[in-house]
Amino acid sequence: MNLTCNPKDFRVQPGTRVNLSKWPTAIDPLSTSKRHYRELLGEYRSELADLQSVLYAHNRYSVLLIFQGMDTAGKGGAIKHVMSGVNPQGCQVFSFQQPSREELDHDFFWRTNKRLPERGRIGIFDRSYYEEVLIVRVDPKVFQAQRLPKECVSDKIWEERHQDIVHLENYLHRNGTRIVKFFLHLSKEEQRQRFLARIDDPDKNWKLTQSDIEVRKQWDTYQKVYADCLGATTSEAAPWHIVPADDKRNARLIVSQIVVETLKNLKMEYPTSSETHKMELEQIRKALESED
Amino acid sequence: MNLTCNPKDFRVQPGTRVNLSKWPTAIDPLSTSKRHYRELLGEYRSELADLQSVLYAHNRYSVLLIFQGMDTAGKGGAIKHVMSGVNPQGCQVFSFQQPSREELDHDFFWRTNKRLPERGRIGIFDRSYYEEVLIVRVDPKVFQAQRLPKECVSDKIWEERHQDIVHLENYLHRNGTRIVKFFLHLSKEEQRQRFLARIDDPDKNWKLTQSDIEVRKQWDTYQKVYADCLGATTSEAAPWHIVPADDKRNARLIVSQIVVETLKNLKMEYPTSSETHKMELEQIRKALESED
Repeated sequence: MNLTCNPKDFRVQPGTRVNLSKWPTAIDPLSTSKRHYRELLGEYRSELADLQSVLYAHNRYSVLLIFQGMDTAGKGGAIKHVMSGVNPQGCQVFSFQQPSREELDHDFFWRTNKRLPERGRIGIFDRSYYEEVLIVRVDPKVFQAQRLPKECVSDKIWEERHQDIVHLENYLHRNGTRIVKFFLHLSKEEQRQRFLARIDDPDKNWKLTQSDIEVRKQWDTYQKVYADCLGATTSEAAPWHIVPADDKRNARLIVSQIVVETLKNLKMEYPTSSETHKMELEQIRKALESED
Repeated sequence: MNLTCNPKDFRVQPGTRVNLSKWPTAIDPLSTSKRHYRELLGEYRSELADLQSVLYAHNRYSVLLIFQGMDTAGKGGAIKHVMSGVNPQGCQVFSFQQPSREELDHDFFWRTNKRLPERGRIGIFDRSYYEEVLIVRVDPKVFQAQRLPKECVSDKIWEERHQDIVHLENYLHRNGTRIVKFFLHLSKEEQRQRFLARIDDPDKNWKLTQSDIEVRKQWDTYQKVYADCLGATTSEAAPWHIVPADDKRNARLIVSQIVVETLKNLKMEYPTSSETHKMELEQIRKALESED
């Protein structure tokens, strides 16, 4: 594989305090032309498809990819373009929007826990339980809808939630789930341009509502709670990556290289037949060959 | 309520090393006759039904009761006799037997997480994720069926699982779930008597198979892993109770008193109407009264 970036450059190391204004939203292009971009992406996708096939046959690990980012950061596009070569039987995407009443009536991991990937599969969360320390932290109405008993609302609730998330991810790691997390890091100006483009695009303008603008008004608050969360919840078991997202092609090339690297590091192989199984196969062959 | 025991006597305090041979499987009768037993149980059940009704209206807490114990310890009977007065709309019982293939393909909390009680409800687990450090620890075949990647099988796996359980229960506590755990503590001789009785009871002998006898053969091992687990996973947020279970009536009276005490301690009240809502109700009354 022709690497065009070093995945480690985007990784948030455990113990880091994150200041998002110090992390770039744009870097030099990783491809020299649209054609070059397509070649590279195609190469990574085909490698990914092969690796996913081994993951499925090996059937011990599962992989969970988490995508977070502000509106228009390109989460859906990255998922679509990076993962489209993979056998859909081995890959499930879940998008988490506003929780249902049934979901609100449970602990906040409930709706995502149900959708965790099976052994041998890649699960993708477009937004996730991280919303519990993002919009739920910023918007009091959303928090109140969770109806927590008063005694559970402590001054340290966001620290506690970060801790609960780290515990969950460590537990999943111990059970063979490999978690990789992407924050698609967009500039405020690029979001403005994308919102404007959305208004002019009749196929996409249904996506934009006043509530998106309300969230945009709190841009700085969101950057702060994101930074706090990224620093507190990155770990060896489940590292965060801050992906410059002002250039969609770059973002997709980075994401695909990180995913490929993660799967490669598992050093999986197709199961080999035991001697007994080989003999069994020979007997099956004979029986099939001598069928009338 | 006429208390006949002190719930604290059965509680495993955090930091305790448990030696099950030091905990009684039988104590002096808490009721003086069968009639007295029925009176007491009826009293607790009616109190429990009232408390559950407030829990439902208050709609902030949920309650999770976990029952563990060796075969014939009386888990099902305790659930049936203690909980039968409660409105089934507010109470769900799940019994966890051998995991399905789909369940085995997920992290081990997956199947129980899905069935956690909603706000305002009582959930009851007849066996639970504790099986992950009991039968899964004792029986290598059951462990192997989980297909963990080799790197996840460390020397400390059972300690890690105890820790994961404590983390989960703390997280649930922070989300308003109140967890109470019961180990129904049976003597080996009493199990022998109950197995023999089961063989002679045509309505119950379908329950007894050779595999139950295989588990009985490992009685001492089970007592050890239970003790290890009870000590490691009792906490303020989710205390274990070791309930003497050789006498079923006693066991039920103890369990019911502990459950009632837990709900009482939540100090819940029915929601009161705000002044605005009271005015709204008056307008509704007027409209209803003046209907043609």
